[in-house]
Amino acid sequence: MLSLNMRLSVFFVLVAMLPCAPVKAQSDWRGQAVVHLEASPGARVRGVPVSAVQLGPGFWTERRKVVTEVSIPTLYQEFEQRGILDNFRRLAGKQVARRGPIYTDSDVYKWMEAVAFEVQSGERRNQPLLEEAIRIVSATQEENGYLNTRYTMERLSDRHQNMLHGHELYCLGHLLQAGIAWYRATGKRDLMDVGIRFVRYLQLRFGPEKEPLYDGHPEIELALIELYRTTGDRSFLDFAGYFLNSDPRLKGRISQRDLVYTFIGKPFTERTQMEGHAVRAGYAASGAADYYLETGDDKYKGTLERLWRDLAESKVYITGGIGSRQTGEAFGEAFELPNQLAYTESCAAIANFFWNWRMLAATGDARHADLLERALYNGINSGLSLDGRLYCYRNPLELSGNSNDRIRNPWYDTTCCPPNLQRVLASLPGYLFGASSEGIAVHLYHTATLDWRLPDGQPLKIRQTTTYPLEGTVHFSVEPGRETTFELGLRIPAWSSNTKVLVNGEDVGSVQSGAYHRIRRQWKPGDRVELRLDMRVRHTLANPRVRDNVGKAAVERGPVVYCLEGLDQPDGLEPEKLALDLRGNAGAATGVPSRLLGGLPVLQHPAVEQQESPSGLYHPRQASRNWKPAQARLVPYFAFANRGFTPMQVWIPYIE
Amino acid sequence: MLSLNMRLSVFFVLVAMLPCAPVKAQSDWRGQAVVHLEASPGARVRGVPVSAVQLGPGFWTERRKVVTEVSIPTLYQEFEQRGILDNFRRLAGKQVARRGPIYTDSDVYKWMEAVAFEVQSGERRNQPLLEEAIRIVSATQEENGYLNTRYTMERLSDRHQNMLHGHELYCLGHLLQAGIAWYRATGKRDLMDVGIRFVRYLQLRFGPEKEPLYDGHPEIELALIELYRTTGDRSFLDFAGYFLNSDPRLKGRISQRDLVYTFIGKPFTERTQMEGHAVRAGYAASGAADYYLETGDDKYKGTLERLWRDLAESKVYITGGIGSRQTGEAFGEAFELPNQLAYTESCAAIANFFWNWRMLAATGDARHADLLERALYNGINSGLSLDGRLYCYRNPLELSGNSNDRIRNPWYDTTCCPPNLQRVLASLPGYLFGASSEGIAVHLYHTATLDWRLPDGQPLKIRQTTTYPLEGTVHFSVEPGRETTFELGLRIPAWSSNTKVLVNGEDVGSVQSGAYHRIRRQWKPGDRVELRLDMRVRHTLANPRVRDNVGKAAVERGPVVYCLEGLDQPDGLEPEKLALDLRGNAGAATGVPSRLLGGLPVLQHPAVEQQESPSGLYHPRQASRNWKPAQARLVPYFAFANRGFTPMQVWIPYIE
Repeated sequence: MLSLNMRLSVFFVLVAMLPCAPVKAQSDWRGQAVVHLEASPGARVRGVPVSAVQLGPGFWTERRKVVTEVSIPTLYQEFEQRGILDNFRRLAGKQVARRGPIYTDSDVYKWMEAVAFEVQSGERRNQPLLEEAIRIVSATQEENGYLNTRYTMERLSDRHQNMLHGHELYCLGHLLQAGIAWYRATGKRDLMDVGIRFVRYLQLRFGPEKEPLYDGHPEIELALIELYRTTGDRSFLDFAGYFLNSDPRLKGRISQRDLVYTFIGKPFTERTQMEGHAVRAGYAASGAADYYLETGDDKYKGTLERLWRDLAESKVYITGGIGSRQTGEAFGEAFELPNQLAYTESCAAIANFFWNWRMLAATGDARHADLLERALYNGINSGLSLDGRLYCYRNPLELSGNSNDRIRNPWYDTTCCPPNLQRVLASLPGYLFGASSEGIAVHLYHTATLDWRLPDGQPLKIRQTTTYPLEGTVHFSVEPGRETTFELGLRIPAWSSNTKVLVNGEDVGSVQSGAYHRIRRQWKPGDRVELRLDMRVRHTLANPRVRDNVGKAAVERGPVVYCLEGLDQPDGLEPEKLALDLRGNAGAATGVPSRLLGGLPVLQHPAVEQQESPSGLYHPRQASRNWKPAQARLVPYFAFANRGFTPMQVWIPYIE
Repeated sequence: MLSLNMRLSVFFVLVAMLPCAPVKAQSDWRGQAVVHLEASPGARVRGVPVSAVQLGPGFWTERRKVVTEVSIPTLYQEFEQRGILDNFRRLAGKQVARRGPIYTDSDVYKWMEAVAFEVQSGERRNQPLLEEAIRIVSATQEENGYLNTRYTMERLSDRHQNMLHGHELYCLGHLLQAGIAWYRATGKRDLMDVGIRFVRYLQLRFGPEKEPLYDGHPEIELALIELYRTTGDRSFLDFAGYFLNSDPRLKGRISQRDLVYTFIGKPFTERTQMEGHAVRAGYAASGAADYYLETGDDKYKGTLERLWRDLAESKVYITGGIGSRQTGEAFGEAFELPNQLAYTESCAAIANFFWNWRMLAATGDARHADLLERALYNGINSGLSLDGRLYCYRNPLELSGNSNDRIRNPWYDTTCCPPNLQRVLASLPGYLFGASSEGIAVHLYHTATLDWRLPDGQPLKIRQTTTYPLEGTVHFSVEPGRETTFELGLRIPAWSSNTKVLVNGEDVGSVQSGAYHRIRRQWKPGDRVELRLDMRVRHTLANPRVRDNVGKAAVERGPVVYCLEGLDQPDGLEPEKLALDLRGNAGAATGVPSRLLGGLPVLQHPAVEQQESPSGLYHPRQASRNWKPAQARLVPYFAFANRGFTPMQVWIPYIE
């Protein structure tokens, strides 16, 4: 790790060399994290490379297995069958019509990025498919660097004409991210260079003193900043800043409605709330956080924190999903969080995850890790079926069980979510640990080995062993190369009310939840730490301003949100007539582990059933209701709708 | 009234004369009701002419006054300022661009129909504006009969090219209805003949053995059947049937999605549920009910009853509003009735009203009158501000009070609702009474005088005197020309649990609610009837499948649904923290009449307030909640958002 002075001088050298300097990596490709912050002035916590973390058996390993074995190869087949790869081959001469919506290129790129992350983890099963895709894509780049299957040939005249809705730079952003992931997997620059040539093409023609440029779907910002981190070419960071600040010449050219919907068109730092299309807003915020990390610009930080509070305090579902409205796939008003109508696109939960990862890097604040984990286990994880074959576009918090409402599908015309889910799960090892100048932080718990180094360069291995989120105990073995003083930070989720930490068997005493518990000591090889998180079933209520959740509770256990599905209820009990019984011992829910549902327990929960429910849509209130004791069965939310069409509820009425 | 034999012979004569016969009215224009069923084989109850009923002072008279004095003249000004009338003048040579969406003609026609209904009631204040509009519209008809400001001049080639979304026949339908209402007001055929010439143009080119024709927004069906009733020309009824049955050549040409959205494209009798765009579905059902009334076709009746049950048992709001979803302005699934996101377009509640009027005519079943009254007092009435200047497009059942959410506006780009509200209120006298072979039915209560006749032709006056819906007592004086035996049917709403009826001061005993109480006797001039409806405050619950209403009650009084608005609550009490206290005497709500709100009482309701509400979006449940006694104030729902931006709820949490 470079010292601050060294880092600054690297900056100056690079800046002096630009924009015509030959592209040069800042650090060895083997050492680069998913979001590579080694030299980022705004970063308090940095990631570690995907390759530095080997996951052992457990929850995510099973999920990643279906991604590798099922999701990635079947999506490639879908690309072939739907003509999405032929869209590229067409540019190389194949006689076919272009198929699918304008942004299909990006779906291929996200899929490529997912496979590249697998290769970073040493999983090479899908590498031949990726190499074939790289050949197909690379063969289609124009002499001048342009590459998009839509705005070419008979549609050449549309090129750069529909910046608001055309997705040209959005596709390029995903191409860059795929190229970077492939470079970090193998050291091969081929795909990344394809993307860079496209960027150079743009930089020649567009920018502050040239023609104005923008894209109505943020994504290029994130990608350019990662490209800057990978290559050291500051013009990429400046180009990202140009997009985030919005070209002043755009003023008045984008309608008020589109300013809200697209989250572009005015400087990011003028934003005051999360609004409009949730994925766009989430990607814009992620890109802006990247920009803050590289520039330390406090105006960005102020805006990011205001937006994050707006999200966390009024616009995020308990699943970590975001985007309440189908119309515009958009945020609603504050506290507008309907359950059945929740739009909560998988990609939006992913955007929330990306953004919180960057906010965590910028602040070290455990709130961001909490929200990131919430999105990961629930609103993201729900998007991929247990067998890896089907995907959710929407992830609602309630379903009526209507068989016309096919919530899980192998393919969508706009198939943005499937490869997005794949790339998150494929990159997951990169999200478990963080490195700071003080030492190592553990963000997420899972059996895994970290093989990395301390700030001073000496090697460090940390092994986690746990069945989390089945149980809450995590054993760590700490293996520095030699005795060294550094900090080991363990994230204590806000939901863990009663947490124990033992170092070499000794209880450290009071542990604060919703914070990193920092153990600073002289660590020696063989040291052991034990973390015991509070996995008791919790009942969570919503702010009364969330009107749909009045009188209802959500059931949670660890990081996992539960739900009630109709088919699990005994004796044909109708789930609409059920209320949780929270009188007396509210923790009476008992768990029965089930392999079917990712190995997590099915909860048996005391409940009451309304016995004689009047028929009809509306009826006069009767003075007393007729409750009958019952048992409700709850399963993890992420597993909903995996076993057929059945009513589902996250927020469940209760009596107390 | 004609005997059945006479009616049939009129039919045969007319059929024999068609399609080339000169158009001839079936009955004098002065005797025609809003939906004129004098000769309709499927009608069990028929309306009476608007001119036969004079409203006295009271609730609807005040509402109609603002329509006449404010709404109708200001909407005309808007039409002028927005270029909507110029769209017509342009066809007569004025050098302006066409403005507004494709269907602006229909907005003018609906406004014209409203004024014509006023004239039917003898209110002539706006008649000069209407006569001017008739001149403007009539001057633009082409030689061949075509008339539409959109599909002409530079857009001539679009004519009949976009049947699915073009609204050409939709506009014609409204032109016909305006022409019919004007004819029934004055006996002048000028505007109706303009419409008829357009229909003749269509009949020459389109139809079963000619080119196929359809319109993706039902409306022409209703209008053609009313034209048939007005003129006796059976080809109009057959043309309506052609649309309702859907041209077999359309099969496979309309996507599944559009089949749902438009409610056209397959035979109406193949429909099994209310779905798609709520106004389209409601107009289609109204047109189909008209078709049943004229043909007695049992297949239509079966479909209509199935669809009506689907609506009434799972898809109608307590306000009589319909259409849950913003996306597609559409019905949701069964029981999908969100409050804040309720779309419930004013026009959809009106479609519900129209349909139920026709179902009432076809069946005589009081359920239809109940639902019609519910829509009228609540989901329709809410659409027009108390001062008559502003209109709701959406009529949600909950508002957060966000000032960006301007729910009442003087104008909408798609300004279908304002004139639709006007024409319903302007025609209202025609909906109070019904006539059958047995006598007279009273559907709606309001101070009013009916000056009409019995089936045998002898004159009959009935006078209602009441302050309903302020109080529930209605006095009737019955004045037949001479002593005669007939039936007087009084609608007893389903909500009136304890009803009294006195004839000449004598209690008739048990009175069934949700039915017509039929008094068959020999009536003599000076007979008196007194009806006492049960106006106690009611607490209504929803079927537990309506998930947003779990644990919540609606407060109703008579036909009026109440709501809670933030600004009425004392001591800055936050409405989100309020729950109605239904322990003990649930009828303890007391009323204070307020002129501000249409003269209806403001209700003071026992409530509790949650004292220390945890901040944040989600929080762990505490074992006990801290309730403090409070008083909630409720106002009629229709008056919501008339006094600024403030939170509003119809469904309110309660404790019991």
